[in-house]
Parts: sequence; C-alpha cells; structure tokens
Amino acid sequence: MTGIDFTVFKGSPAGKIVESKTHKESLKPDEVLLKITHAGLCGTDQHYKTEDMVLGHEGVGVVQQVGSQVTAFKVGDRAGWGFLHNTCGHCDECLNANEFFCPERATYAHSNTDQGAFASHAVWKAAFLFHIPDTISSSDAAPLMCAGATIFNAMYSYNVRPADRVGIIGVGGLGHIAIQFAAKMGCEVVVFSGSDHKREEARSLGAKEFYTRSASKYEVGKPIKHLFVTTSHLPDWNLFLSVLAPNATIYPITVSHGDLVIPYTPIISKGLTIQGIFCASRGVHVKMLRFAAIHGIKPITQEFPLTVEGIEEAMAKLDRGEIRYRAVLVAGR
Amino acid sequence: MTGIDFTVFKGSPAGKIVESKTHKESLKPDEVLLKITHAGLCGTDQHYKTEDMVLGHEGVGVVQQVGSQVTAFKVGDRAGWGFLHNTCGHCDECLNANEFFCPERATYAHSNTDQGAFASHAVWKAAFLFHIPDTISSSDAAPLMCAGATIFNAMYSYNVRPADRVGIIGVGGLGHIAIQFAAKMGCEVVVFSGSDHKREEARSLGAKEFYTRSASKYEVGKPIKHLFVTTSHLPDWNLFLSVLAPNATIYPITVSHGDLVIPYTPIISKGLTIQGIFCASRGVHVKMLRFAAIHGIKPITQEFPLTVEGIEEAMAKLDRGEIRYRAVLVAGR
Repeated sequence: MTGIDFTVFKGSPAGKIVESKTHKESLKPDEVLLKITHAGLCGTDQHYKTEDMVLGHEGVGVVQQVGSQVTAFKVGDRAGWGFLHNTCGHCDECLNANEFFCPERATYAHSNTDQGAFASHAVWKAAFLFHIPDTISSSDAAPLMCAGATIFNAMYSYNVRPADRVGIIGVGGLGHIAIQFAAKMGCEVVVFSGSDHKREEARSLGAKEFYTRSASKYEVGKPIKHLFVTTSHLPDWNLFLSVLAPNATIYPITVSHGDLVIPYTPIISKGLTIQGIFCASRGVHVKMLRFAAIHGIKPITQEFPLTVEGIEEAMAKLDRGEIRYRAVLVAGR
Repeated sequence: MTGIDFTVFKGSPAGKIVESKTHKESLKPDEVLLKITHAGLCGTDQHYKTEDMVLGHEGVGVVQQVGSQVTAFKVGDRAGWGFLHNTCGHCDECLNANEFFCPERATYAHSNTDQGAFASHAVWKAAFLFHIPDTISSSDAAPLMCAGATIFNAMYSYNVRPADRVGIIGVGGLGHIAIQFAAKMGCEVVVFSGSDHKREEARSLGAKEFYTRSASKYEVGKPIKHLFVTTSHLPDWNLFLSVLAPNATIYPITVSHGDLVIPYTPIISKGLTIQGIFCASRGVHVKMLRFAAIHGIKPITQEFPLTVEGIEEAMAKLDRGEIRYRAVLVAGR
C-alpha cells in the first residue's frame, strides 16, 4: 500500500454527521485494508454523535490488501469487526480468552477514532477481524458484530442452559436477536414488550410467551431464570423481581448512565445475580457467527445509504423508535 | 417422647428478651429432639428481637431422642442446624441440591417460630440437621451454622478459585471467618477495615494485605477478583469499584433494607457481577463443616450464658461493635 485517503463519517459537537478524510500511509505487517460494504447502526453510535470521531463499530467489508505477516485473511475475503480493535496479548484477561476485558484494550470511541465502520475503508489488525460465514449476507452480518455478539455472549458465557425459562425485555435491535438465540439454544423464551403489536413477530422469532404490561404486575406462571434487559432504559425493577426464579440472573444490557438502583432484599432472599455485560471476546464472537450460520439466525434490518444523509436519516429513525429492528448502512457500489 | 415442655427465649415488641415455654407433644417419625448446648448470635437475631418469636438460628446440641424413621442420628450425637428447617423436596431447587431456595422453604423467622437456638431444647427434622465433626467443638460449631455456611457458600458455589485475589470488607463475625476460608482455599486475601487495630489479627487469620481507608481511594496494586461485603452496612461503592478486576464479582452479604444503589457504568464496562448470597443448601453446608475440620478453621468467639441476661448482654455488645468476633450463648450444665 502506498498510502490511501478514504472517506469517513464523523460526529460533531452540533450532532450533525460530517464527511471527512482519513489518511493511512502504509499497512503494518499484521494489518488488513478493508473496503467497507455494510455498517450496523447501534445506540452506542448515537451516544457519540456529538464527538469529533469517526462513528460506527459494526463493520463488514471485503479485504483489499493484507500486511506481510497476515495469513488468516486474503484479498477478496469478507471480514467484519466490532467494538474491539486490539489488546495487550499477555495479561490475565488476554491469556484466558477474556481479552475484551484487557486493561489495555483498544475499543471504539477510545482508540483509533480516526476510522470506524461509517467509512469507505478501514485498516485493522487481522487478529481482531472475523470471517463471515458463507450463508450470512454482509448486510445481516453487520448487526451481529456488536448487538449479536453482546447478546450471544451474555447467553453463552453466563450459563443459560437448555430448558431454562428466559425473559427478554424489549423487542428491538438487541431483543429481536436475543429471542432467536435463546430459542435456538433450547430455552423457553418469554418476551415482555411495551405494546402488543410486536406479539406475532416475537412469536415468529421463537418466543413462546409474550406479555404486555396490563396492570401493576406481570403474571407469567413459572418464574424466569434469566432476564435480559434490552430496552434503552432500565425497567421498573419491582415489576420484574416478582417474576424471577430463585437464583435467577438479571442481565442489564442497556447502556445508560447514573446509578443502578434496585431493591436489595430480593437480591439476597432469592440469591439473585446481576451480571454486567459488554461485548464478546473473540472466541465467543466466532462461536456466535457459527451458531447464527447453523441456525439461520438473522437480524431484521432496514437499509440506508452509507452517506451523511443516510446516517442522519437512520439515526433520526432510531431516536424515534422507528427502526425494525436494526439499521444497516450500505455503501454504494 | 410423651410430651416435653422446654424453655425458649423470645423477642418482644419492646426489644426485651422474654423467657417462655414451648410444648411439643411427640416426635414425628422423621424428627429429632435435641438438648441445646450452644447457640451463635447473628445480626439477623437482632433484626427480630422486637418480634414475638423464639430467637436463634445457629444451634448446636446433643440428640436426646429420635423419631421412628430416623437413621442418620442416634441419641448422644452432636448435631447443629442453621437457617433452614424444611423444604418441599420435589421442586426444581430441591431436586438440584439448591433447596435453600425452595419456594416452600421453612426458615428462621418465617416458620417454626415457637422454637429456635435460644432455648433449652428443639425438635427438628433430621434431614435438616448436621453432624458436627469430632475436631470442632460445639461452641466453635455454632457460628459455622449460619455465618460460616453463608460465607463458605459464597466462596464455594460461585467460582472463587485458588490464586484469585479476594477482597474482604470488614473484620467481624462474617469477615474473620471469610479470611480463613479464602486463605485455605488458596486465595490471596486482601482485607479492608475501618481501622488499623485489627491488622495483626487479620494477618494471623490468613490475610496477605490489609488496608485502612486513608484517603479518597484505596491503592491495592493488582486488582481484586472477588469482593465480599461483610460489614453491617453497604460500602461507598466508588471506593471499591476502582480496585476491582475485570469480571470481578461483588458479594453483598450484608443484610440491609432499601435499595442497592451502585454506579452502573463500571458494571457494564468491567463486566462485573453482583451476586446475592443467602445461606447454604445442605450439600454445601456439609462441605463447609468438612473444610473447617480439615483446616482447623474456627471462629473467634466470646461466650455468654444462654439466659435472658446473657442474650441481652451479648446483643448489647454486638450492637456496640464490641464482639470479637462472634458471640456464642452457652447453656448451663
């Protein structure tokens, strides 16, 4: 590579999307140059749209060039990436396949802010790219890179077992994928939604039961063993603590600021677990892609052009809760 | 048994200890009559001292009579019991050795309130009694029945591993046992205490490091993987979140009312777990006793007479934080 200028789309203090250029002089031996074809839009990107940084962290593209030491990818391969760009490789977390929590991790919004998934190209370390299984389209793969990996990680790494009764709060970008993963893991999926009009879709994705809030409490019969909070705000805990089984786990996947405030006595008396969840380390990310390929699990997406206008339109719709269920930005040919 | 009246010590609305009598007409086939010799005093007993119920749930005694179907105990055996009196035996929790969380569990303060460990005798189902290992005195065994079982359960059942760096907040009734268990499990034990004068004792119990709060934060070097909160109030979380390792677990063993309020962002960004802990189910309780026997783990106790005056004195000292580190009430000969 003899130097490349590529297009990137950044946030700005006013919250407007700005088109800009990033220059990369050359590929390091362990790096890959990708032409980006698809990028998922995640709530986290909204959080950063007032920052002067390139947005997007659910990227999929085609390999255009590889560094001298790269063996796992070749030109023409499809590849994707998510929140994580690099880790130290020698700490406890890295050595135990838990590198997402490397204290020196390089992640979206905290490093490499001169490039991202909302761009024409990107240069990443090959070790943090993922092959896309043949049966998954690049458009469907994009939302799996963060939303899919996060929800799969929560279920796969924290002891969700077949026959477990799994509750999912919210049918949105995360929730509609969560329903599919849990159903295919052999769980009994129970969905809690704010309104009734997603009932049939939830059932078609694998939900066995669907509850909308009709009164001051939910009546769900047999209690819930794992509760995934996928809505954009944390719920009224009193509504949900009463439906939890002994030793149930709550996974608040929602990203929000401030304190977690939750009644304490039931946590003790029921022996509940609250499990913080971030994205997956690579071993689990790869298993997620295999699992999705085996079971034909796909996000339901709406496509927008990977342009200033396309990003702004998708973000505006996401803000208004109008995306069914994940926006994917698609590069022009 | 042709009917027995025995002495019991109850709470009362004014918070005074009241001596009373309980009558048991006969032993059921699966029951055991114990003469109580020792009873631990737990903070939970303080919670109930204004209730008209027999107090005490860390009981140890000698078997005086057994029901017609009891085979596991014989007259003269030493036996102890804790928080749990009975469970249904057929629910998911019971069938998976997790009977402490049986929805129909009979526990201290919620059932059998006509008897308890602060009494001359008690009648319990044999299935919920524990043999006391020969090398553990009855006085030392009493605090193991709840305090010991709870802290051991937290460590044994939730993935504390050798070489893990284990933080213990508080050197008291729970904390001084926690230090010993964690040290003998092969962990690196780090103690956080409100003042410096327990430093040597903590070290003699197995702590490798001891920190008192000197400024607005703790500087502990390598971060903590498991944090046990054994103080009577929940801590200032901001002090402790910064010393936690990625994927660390917080065990708030403290019993208090109201909400758990904890900064949310670090839970997500570090993938933390908050694990509610109650007492142990029987399989783990038995392992706790074996573990304590093998390693010579003993509570440090102060003895008081098992009388109205003895209970009130012990409770007053516990209230003032003067017990080093667990009060045991001892029956007269």
